[in-house]
Amino acid sequence: MRLKDIGEFGLIKRFQKKIKINSSVVKGSGDDCAVLKFNKSSYQLFTCDMIVEGVDFFKTADLRLVGRKALAVSISDIAACGGTPQHAVVALGLSGNMQVHQIDRLAKGLLDLAGKFNINIVGGDISASSKLIIDVSMLGVVQKNKLCLRQGARAGDLIMVTGDFGGAIKGKHLKFTPRLKEAQFLVNNFKINAMIDVSDGLVADLGHILKQSSVGAVLYASLIPLSKQAQGIEEALCSGEEFELLFTASRDQADKIIQSAKYHFKVIGEILPEAFGLRLINSKNEYSKLKFQGYRHF
Amino acid sequence: MRLKDIGEFGLIKRFQKKIKINSSVVKGSGDDCAVLKFNKSSYQLFTCDMIVEGVDFFKTADLRLVGRKALAVSISDIAACGGTPQHAVVALGLSGNMQVHQIDRLAKGLLDLAGKFNINIVGGDISASSKLIIDVSMLGVVQKNKLCLRQGARAGDLIMVTGDFGGAIKGKHLKFTPRLKEAQFLVNNFKINAMIDVSDGLVADLGHILKQSSVGAVLYASLIPLSKQAQGIEEALCSGEEFELLFTASRDQADKIIQSAKYHFKVIGEILPEAFGLRLINSKNEYSKLKFQGYRHF
Repeated sequence: MRLKDIGEFGLIKRFQKKIKINSSVVKGSGDDCAVLKFNKSSYQLFTCDMIVEGVDFFKTADLRLVGRKALAVSISDIAACGGTPQHAVVALGLSGNMQVHQIDRLAKGLLDLAGKFNINIVGGDISASSKLIIDVSMLGVVQKNKLCLRQGARAGDLIMVTGDFGGAIKGKHLKFTPRLKEAQFLVNNFKINAMIDVSDGLVADLGHILKQSSVGAVLYASLIPLSKQAQGIEEALCSGEEFELLFTASRDQADKIIQSAKYHFKVIGEILPEAFGLRLINSKNEYSKLKFQGYRHF
Repeated sequence: MRLKDIGEFGLIKRFQKKIKINSSVVKGSGDDCAVLKFNKSSYQLFTCDMIVEGVDFFKTADLRLVGRKALAVSISDIAACGGTPQHAVVALGLSGNMQVHQIDRLAKGLLDLAGKFNINIVGGDISASSKLIIDVSMLGVVQKNKLCLRQGARAGDLIMVTGDFGGAIKGKHLKFTPRLKEAQFLVNNFKINAMIDVSDGLVADLGHILKQSSVGAVLYASLIPLSKQAQGIEEALCSGEEFELLFTASRDQADKIIQSAKYHFKVIGEILPEAFGLRLINSKNEYSKLKFQGYRHF
């Protein structure tokens, strides 16, 4: 049996079964960040994201944008948990033949974004590698009562998103600004029941919320905000690396979020009891069942 | 100009000049771990180490030992700062063609060692990669008054080590037990002025202590403990990935450490004023100047 036979999520499940954690861990593997005991009022968040040449970006990509992306994906994870990013370490796999001015561009993209978000780059490691690899591990902090996880969605919640969806691979995946301001506005002013950032795809990531909250959902095709790059509703539902926020809140809270008219939050569906599974209602009011599919590494 | 022209340390210097950190960072890049403000009595330690197939281990290596090593190198970094490891996240670059039972072996090596050292594996990331990559980021904690850095060595200090040196590449680099017990015995019972783990090589890593402490040193060839695998004194002085502790303490403290007769600590030299540089005294009482050379990735 090969990795491609069981896939990324099969492998993750296999690992998770074997892992033992102690009581200093509030939430281990299986969410956007690990949640660790920290102090009286706050938890610490800990996450890592590796990007690899030829998989997460092309060899021809502007390395300033690649460096930027390497950090941005972890900021997005911290944001999705309701937290504030603080520190990061950066492991680089580099070829000895790389031009130093190219590495400078990579560093510039990464450090400029770190500056913008007040993140301290506090260390790293450099190894030889024929393909460019960047792995960023990030620490953040979140007030206990503002922590958002994938679990917590309740039947009756409205499902909401930031931004629009589709075709991220055409450019947005390298240029997105992590939705930290939006996430902090949400957790500081409203009760958010569940939140995730859309990296695997809207349906796949909603699937994570549904599974971990033991609920079902209905999405309205006509409500999904499509980007100019979207090839259609199906593509928008599956498009990975959009790095928008996907969250649920009670109808009352959702109304208030919309009324705040701050940022661009949109309702796209509703949480239902688990037995409903996940359904999409199209413009003719017909429904279809959806599978939780998204980007697959293997 | 290519990376191989400026080398790993040239690149690190280049990065370090551009990095800005705020007051929540006690010590950023440039030591075995980053040191972060944590609570009244303790600092948090944060480190990462990436290992890559073909560079840090051969394709034919037992993956149980590879998984073990991936975690062990970070434990060694936390130990060298006088701390206790607590949590880790693991980023994996894997080929879809890898056999699942091979990945299971890798996971077993890593998780068994995590269990032995009470480290919580709290998350990770999986990416596609033709060559196997494992990057571990680890958090630890250290009491403020027990923190050991590369800086702090003083003229008159004795230079001491754990274990023996030479030929780590023949097997020790995959099988070493991080010197956590030894490090904790040292910081709990004595005043250690500077400490590092030997990953680049004895002379290269002593060089890090000397530079960051603005001191010189003399090593006595006859005192360097040679392993059975050592090819001779020169090889032992340059051998990377030995993962022994190298530390300095005042003569008085060093005497007490030796008298404790606990573990296997050995004096190998003495810290001198900076102007002496680094000298080696051979068995005929002749001295030679040493350059701070060790393993080079590029």
